[in-house]
Amino acid sequence: MDVTKIKNIDKITYRGEFDENTSPRKNLPEKASKMLPSIREAIIKSGLKDGMTISFHHHFRNGDYIVNMVLDEIAKLGIKDLTVAASSLTSCHAPMIEHIKNGVVTHIETSGMRGDLAEAVSRGLMDTPVVFRSHGGRADAIASGDIHIDVAFLGAPTCDIMGNANGYNRYEENATMCGSLGYAKVDAEYADCVVIITDHIVPYPNTPCGIPAVDVRYIVEVENIGDPNGIMSGATRYTKNPKELMIAKQTAEVIEHSGYFKDGFSMQMGSGGASLATARFLREKMEEQGIHCDFALGGITGQIAEMHEAGLIDKILDVQSFDLRAAESLKNNRFHAQIDGCFYAGYDFVGAAVNALDFVILSALEIDTDFNVNVLTGSDGVIRGAIGGHPDTADGAKMSVVVGPLTRGRIPTIVDHVQTVITPGVDVDVVVTDQGVAVNPRRPDLAEKLQEAGILLYSIEELKERAEKIVGKPDPIKYKDKVVGLALYRDNSIIDVIHEIDESDMSR
Amino acid sequence: MDVTKIKNIDKITYRGEFDENTSPRKNLPEKASKMLPSIREAIIKSGLKDGMTISFHHHFRNGDYIVNMVLDEIAKLGIKDLTVAASSLTSCHAPMIEHIKNGVVTHIETSGMRGDLAEAVSRGLMDTPVVFRSHGGRADAIASGDIHIDVAFLGAPTCDIMGNANGYNRYEENATMCGSLGYAKVDAEYADCVVIITDHIVPYPNTPCGIPAVDVRYIVEVENIGDPNGIMSGATRYTKNPKELMIAKQTAEVIEHSGYFKDGFSMQMGSGGASLATARFLREKMEEQGIHCDFALGGITGQIAEMHEAGLIDKILDVQSFDLRAAESLKNNRFHAQIDGCFYAGYDFVGAAVNALDFVILSALEIDTDFNVNVLTGSDGVIRGAIGGHPDTADGAKMSVVVGPLTRGRIPTIVDHVQTVITPGVDVDVVVTDQGVAVNPRRPDLAEKLQEAGILLYSIEELKERAEKIVGKPDPIKYKDKVVGLALYRDNSIIDVIHEIDESDMSR
Repeated sequence: MDVTKIKNIDKITYRGEFDENTSPRKNLPEKASKMLPSIREAIIKSGLKDGMTISFHHHFRNGDYIVNMVLDEIAKLGIKDLTVAASSLTSCHAPMIEHIKNGVVTHIETSGMRGDLAEAVSRGLMDTPVVFRSHGGRADAIASGDIHIDVAFLGAPTCDIMGNANGYNRYEENATMCGSLGYAKVDAEYADCVVIITDHIVPYPNTPCGIPAVDVRYIVEVENIGDPNGIMSGATRYTKNPKELMIAKQTAEVIEHSGYFKDGFSMQMGSGGASLATARFLREKMEEQGIHCDFALGGITGQIAEMHEAGLIDKILDVQSFDLRAAESLKNNRFHAQIDGCFYAGYDFVGAAVNALDFVILSALEIDTDFNVNVLTGSDGVIRGAIGGHPDTADGAKMSVVVGPLTRGRIPTIVDHVQTVITPGVDVDVVVTDQGVAVNPRRPDLAEKLQEAGILLYSIEELKERAEKIVGKPDPIKYKDKVVGLALYRDNSIIDVIHEIDESDMSR
Repeated sequence: MDVTKIKNIDKITYRGEFDENTSPRKNLPEKASKMLPSIREAIIKSGLKDGMTISFHHHFRNGDYIVNMVLDEIAKLGIKDLTVAASSLTSCHAPMIEHIKNGVVTHIETSGMRGDLAEAVSRGLMDTPVVFRSHGGRADAIASGDIHIDVAFLGAPTCDIMGNANGYNRYEENATMCGSLGYAKVDAEYADCVVIITDHIVPYPNTPCGIPAVDVRYIVEVENIGDPNGIMSGATRYTKNPKELMIAKQTAEVIEHSGYFKDGFSMQMGSGGASLATARFLREKMEEQGIHCDFALGGITGQIAEMHEAGLIDKILDVQSFDLRAAESLKNNRFHAQIDGCFYAGYDFVGAAVNALDFVILSALEIDTDFNVNVLTGSDGVIRGAIGGHPDTADGAKMSVVVGPLTRGRIPTIVDHVQTVITPGVDVDVVVTDQGVAVNPRRPDLAEKLQEAGILLYSIEELKERAEKIVGKPDPIKYKDKVVGLALYRDNSIIDVIHEIDESDMSR
């Protein structure tokens, strides 16, 4: 028998005699379950060892219990020198400071960081700089193997005994939900070992599902995966802040006259007050002019879900649900699709959804006169934000609109140089503040359209001067030499570095 | 800066200056499209070379144009020595014979084969034995890398310009549909290069989608992907064949009294006449007794879809849609989920859906007195079938029921030894024929339950003798030494080999 043409023929063996003991059938769920009694047991069974990489998702936002529970158990087991590759971290993850001091965690990869952990990292807590990636960059790095996840610990509001996991619950009213598991789906697909941690085991099959059973190795049921109030608020409220309303009204007008507001457009909106208000003004314009939207992308709010249900938006591509209303829509609406981080903004520069966007509305902590945007570090140099999908969408969309108040308290938003460049000016088309609009000189076509529509435009330098006139020019921040963070662009190249802040001069 | 803890740090480079020319944004879909003008162009761009492996799916059944179109173009380009790894092949693929003779195709991996190609293979056409795998085994082999697909050529009834592909069409009434792309989804996920061949480019985003854009490298639009009548008939009709009706009635009674017919059960039914009729009788029993089904799995018929819509079946897990009615349901019903070959029956022996089945109804060409089943070769030794999900489901389900007429024309179904063992007797629990029921002696529990319910049971030997009494004992088939096929069990071990048939004695 000539078998030279059969590749991997050595993998094909003769079966030999069949009997009850050699039949795979004996491995029925009852007998070979994925269910384990504790997180501790799952860590042991996963084979986690010193120096490995573990991952988490941030779909539970500031209500997350998973990261702290898992790291506590890992520390008790004496495992050290781990890389934590989280899709993002928030202020509820402050307990990680102790695990860093004890050598359990020696490196962090994340999209963002806030609270005590971010304060400590900004003051030199870690020897190795934290690597900050965009959501698209992270998905890309995981898919390409640049981030190799040994064990993913993924919280899920529901899971069946085979491992099909979801961000919502079809079997219990008022159960905790996080909606889309978009970022976690990538971890589940590529990690060597996936542990689902859930507080609701539901009947098989938990379909349609966010994470399929074939990606899951172990399941642990715990009492609580998180604080429901921190995971998700009921509905995102409309702002009453007059500055935000002014920005929103102006932004909606910019969009209306940009040339991209025509039947069949596509968009991504943020979850900030100004973004939400913009959606409301935009909705009015859509209804008045009979214009409908082909698809809304990204982090999804209840507002977008309502526009979908009202027939104004055909399809929703949801990588992250921002509120309960959005999560309910994901659960109930057939054309509200759950997409993963790769589909959203990943390595496929032709096929990623961000590249099909007409426009995106984005926020900013700082914008400089080169239109560079900072969403990661505060005006004091301390980390207090997240890259998120900022550079992914700003780069992908035909028009990116960055919105923000000209000043926040005594701090100007428009400055000479941002503390940290997260999205480069080349990707930013329009800046809308409560005190005026500036168009990137790279987009004279856009400036012309807006001026024709009677929108008063300023140069970005004029906006900067206006901000300085109100709050003055801030003193430069002092940094030490030590690099505490690397900020990566959507292609995972370093776009900026974050230095340790220098507080030695206490007079400041 | 201490970067020793950052794994793959060499993959992170400095970005350098940003300008319009270095921005990924320039790669917008219009500019860097996946669309190619021809299959020829796609073959060239894919980098296909001598000795590589290409793959196809069989969701277009006997209406498929893709395999022949692609192989013709490959042959014209002079590429040789290819492995064709198809999810299955049918009689419409007879033109492949020429490509085998010309050395374009030197090895085939498939689930089944019919018609002229199968006749020729059975008579020694190929030097290398064809490797026949179950649907689960194939998914497993692709996921593990044992089958490494260099280029997958996947036909799809719709695709958007980014590459999101579906087995149905939401934009045009009466367009060709094949329903689930379940088997193709595995190829799309693991192949090095995926080419979608479609006859309908639809608006972005074609969500929810069977194959996501991130898995797709090239798209080719052709006039016709297949013959609509061969791809899918409108609705599967009920049988009027009295033998089949008798089998169906008996099968429904076996199920009713097996202990597995209780509220919340799960099942897989075939698409043959007896299976379809069984579903009808089972439906009556469900309605009468107020019993509902948690989920129906596998190849899905319109009958299952109708029971779902009537509220008798909660969820459908669809790896392959057998008729237009089923495809319509997949398109329209939220709990009619499209699952891939891994989810259905793949490597995850704990989490694969087949392992959660209460019972499965399966057909047979031959059954022997050890309860071994043959669904691949005919009584003349010629290949004329497909392994499909037979061993996957027979092994996974708590009860497997194999149904068939005791005799077909002058051919007995129950024999001393099947020509080819596809599903081993250890996986077969009950055999139902039009002339009686036999329970595998390995399942005395089941025999007891059925006898208590008044179902008359025979030994498998009694059924065999009965068949022989009617049609006589067939002459043994003569084979040559040459092995033309390897039949693999669900774990990809060789369970049997198929020899070249010996027709030298023409008196037979």
